Amino acid sequence: MYDIVILGGGPGGYVAAERAGHMGKKVLLIEKERLGGVCLNHGCVPTKSLLNSAKLYSHALDSENYGVTVKGAEFSLEKAMKWKRNVVDTMVGGIDFLMKENNVDVVMGEGSVHADGSISVGNEVYRGTSVIIATGSSPFLPPIPGIESSRVMTSRDLLQIEKLPGSLTVIGGGVIGMEFASLFSSVGVQVTVIEMLEEILPMMDKRMARTVRTEMKAVNFHLGSRVTRIEDDRVFFEENGKEQSLQSDFILVAVGRRANTESFKDAGIAIDRGFVVVDDQMRTNLPNVYAIGDVTGKSMLAHSAYRMGEVAVNTIAGKKDRMRYSAIPWALYTTPEAAGCGLTEDAAKKEGQSIKVGSYQMKNNSRFYAEHGKAAGLCKVVADADTGVILGIHLVGGVSSELIGGAAAIIEAELRVQEIKEVIYPHPSLSEVIRDAVWQID
Amino acid sequence: MYDIVILGGGPGGYVAAERAGHMGKKVLLIEKERLGGVCLNHGCVPTKSLLNSAKLYSHALDSENYGVTVKGAEFSLEKAMKWKRNVVDTMVGGIDFLMKENNVDVVMGEGSVHADGSISVGNEVYRGTSVIIATGSSPFLPPIPGIESSRVMTSRDLLQIEKLPGSLTVIGGGVIGMEFASLFSSVGVQVTVIEMLEEILPMMDKRMARTVRTEMKAVNFHLGSRVTRIEDDRVFFEENGKEQSLQSDFILVAVGRRANTESFKDAGIAIDRGFVVVDDQMRTNLPNVYAIGDVTGKSMLAHSAYRMGEVAVNTIAGKKDRMRYSAIPWALYTTPEAAGCGLTEDAAKKEGQSIKVGSYQMKNNSRFYAEHGKAAGLCKVVADADTGVILGIHLVGGVSSELIGGAAAIIEAELRVQEIKEVIYPHPSLSEVIRDAVWQID
Repeated sequence: MYDIVILGGGPGGYVAAERAGHMGKKVLLIEKERLGGVCLNHGCVPTKSLLNSAKLYSHALDSENYGVTVKGAEFSLEKAMKWKRNVVDTMVGGIDFLMKENNVDVVMGEGSVHADGSISVGNEVYRGTSVIIATGSSPFLPPIPGIESSRVMTSRDLLQIEKLPGSLTVIGGGVIGMEFASLFSSVGVQVTVIEMLEEILPMMDKRMARTVRTEMKAVNFHLGSRVTRIEDDRVFFEENGKEQSLQSDFILVAVGRRANTESFKDAGIAIDRGFVVVDDQMRTNLPNVYAIGDVTGKSMLAHSAYRMGEVAVNTIAGKKDRMRYSAIPWALYTTPEAAGCGLTEDAAKKEGQSIKVGSYQMKNNSRFYAEHGKAAGLCKVVADADTGVILGIHLVGGVSSELIGGAAAIIEAELRVQEIKEVIYPHPSLSEVIRDAVWQID
Repeated sequence: MYDIVILGGGPGGYVAAERAGHMGKKVLLIEKERLGGVCLNHGCVPTKSLLNSAKLYSHALDSENYGVTVKGAEFSLEKAMKWKRNVVDTMVGGIDFLMKENNVDVVMGEGSVHADGSISVGNEVYRGTSVIIATGSSPFLPPIPGIESSRVMTSRDLLQIEKLPGSLTVIGGGVIGMEFASLFSSVGVQVTVIEMLEEILPMMDKRMARTVRTEMKAVNFHLGSRVTRIEDDRVFFEENGKEQSLQSDFILVAVGRRANTESFKDAGIAIDRGFVVVDDQMRTNLPNVYAIGDVTGKSMLAHSAYRMGEVAVNTIAGKKDRMRYSAIPWALYTTPEAAGCGLTEDAAKKEGQSIKVGSYQMKNNSRFYAEHGKAAGLCKVVADADTGVILGIHLVGGVSSELIGGAAAIIEAELRVQEIKEVIYPHPSLSEVIRDAVWQID
């Protein structure tokens, strides 16, 4: 009998196991494939490794203005993939070590949750006083005629290829679609993105999403376009009521992800629109059964799963905690990078919320200009009009992905405009744009 | 008659002018050379532009492991300097625009403050209800025999050279010395640093200073070494009681800076150990005369000067404000980068303060590993043992310089260990190391 049995060793599951083990709980973690889950093995981490390689290649091609001339720069997919495997293997080894260090038992195998709360893996049956479901999500393949074509790939498939394609069509202009579009276009692949909505990156401030799109000059975009069918290497789509088609070597389908619920389909866990229903302490409808991460559909991000895992473990341990969704950052590791946290100006206007907004062009920041010249880049801060509490910080350009964590702390702590005006940011650093945008409020 | 006359158009002076102008004050800014002061024209900004060029060159030489192969990479000092001048000129133009936009009168010329509070520039005499002195600092040249050698340069001189030297001796292992050592060693110059103390970078956590030093593998260090004399291109120094000497093309002297007090030497402004004495509202001993920035010696950083300028202007305008020195970040743009804010472990121990410390190796962070492999890197967080308030955050490695602004907000807002544990940092990003180090406390 375990204190806690956790099903799924992705970001939610392994952090929950680490925290619970550290508290002295007897913990079992069940993973069907490899510790680290999709994020580490087939998602965020390998993508970032390859995107870094692609950025280094872009630098090698494009640094003459800064005083560096390079002859004969070549991108080797084989070497970049080899390094990516090293990164993933090393990090998986790190999680393995963390589990041992925190006395977590790990069972490799496919677990099934039963109605009596027990979990079986093959012939073995495990029981825990509490159960945490962290089974994650899988790419959603929409019912497009012809989607079974051998040219169609998921993000996971594309991370395994051995040779660069000449051309790639990306169906879906969300985070995954755009990161792959950036990656492959940077290393010379002809990339086209087909997006159903009128703009890419729907979670983002509209103006800033447009900036990301227009800065990705090597990528072709078809917005407001609905894919109607696929025939082998050709994607057919409707744009402005007119059918068009595109031929490409590979077709990436990145239109969303669906919860992995098969392993507990007979356990009586309440599901709504495909996702497990949870409260703010990550409780499901069954007593002592919790769910965290992508399977809840609440926020499909690795770092949200981390925090949900902590909330579930604290709740099990009787420590007061609560999942909050108002200060979860996201980051896009494209060129240019983009990131955001909290309320956007668009969302506030839609909800009729009374806000004040400050914006600052990154090219006016001396470090940004020194490193990127007049490239597009913007910081936008949204604050409550009455209280001055910072509700949202949004960035495009430079190392946005590394600034947004500090922004999340500001939003989580509910700091106010006046307080940020008094924070001293180092000069010259890109991080100053947050303070500069705050000064533009009023 | 002006509301405020500001002497010196560096970071302290131009920000004070901008804020005061924005408030509707009638402001005069006097600058003897060029808006932006030392920081923009001869210091932080041009250095960062050149350091970025040097980093791009290092990337070009050293990206094969990540999948980018290059046949030949060359560093052109001429092009890097040309870009640097573009950066400086563009930013100076930006300040010029800001002054106009905020209705600040600018007079170019050398100002002198008189005992009656008036300021003359040549034959013109100006008066302000309040005066802000922001005259900055200059490199200190210590009385070493032979320091008048034509091989001896200040940081300002080195930013103007037209040809890379073959070798460079740096006297002084502080921030300026180390940034130049990193810059020149990265582009193939043989660099030696001579430092009087037992470790470089005295403001830094000792362990982390050692990491910076040992990671700068191309640089030779002589610690605990006192320079005794210079003879043309040869520096003589005592190390462990033994005299040695070093020949090099250039000798950079970077042992500190002294306040520029000449322009108000007869005005009766109180000076202590060479720096103007000010209170927490930046008041000098003379009524309605304020001093900000390097000339006060309180914190010789551009961003400290910014904030001091704001405090002085708020005080003049009757708005309650106060300069605080506990959350001022610093950043070192060397390879590796380093940055810190607040109390170090060493300082806390020296003062007998009761603290808890958490450390996290950057190589355990997946983005860091993906981009830098097993390179050295560390995050250290210092918290009050009783209250859990975060007192210091210190970093070496990766984009430390861009993380420390977010850290400064945490320290300024007096957030606690438990609160940072609940902040969601994006995964995979280097910024996660702050949260991970906080989790290591206890």
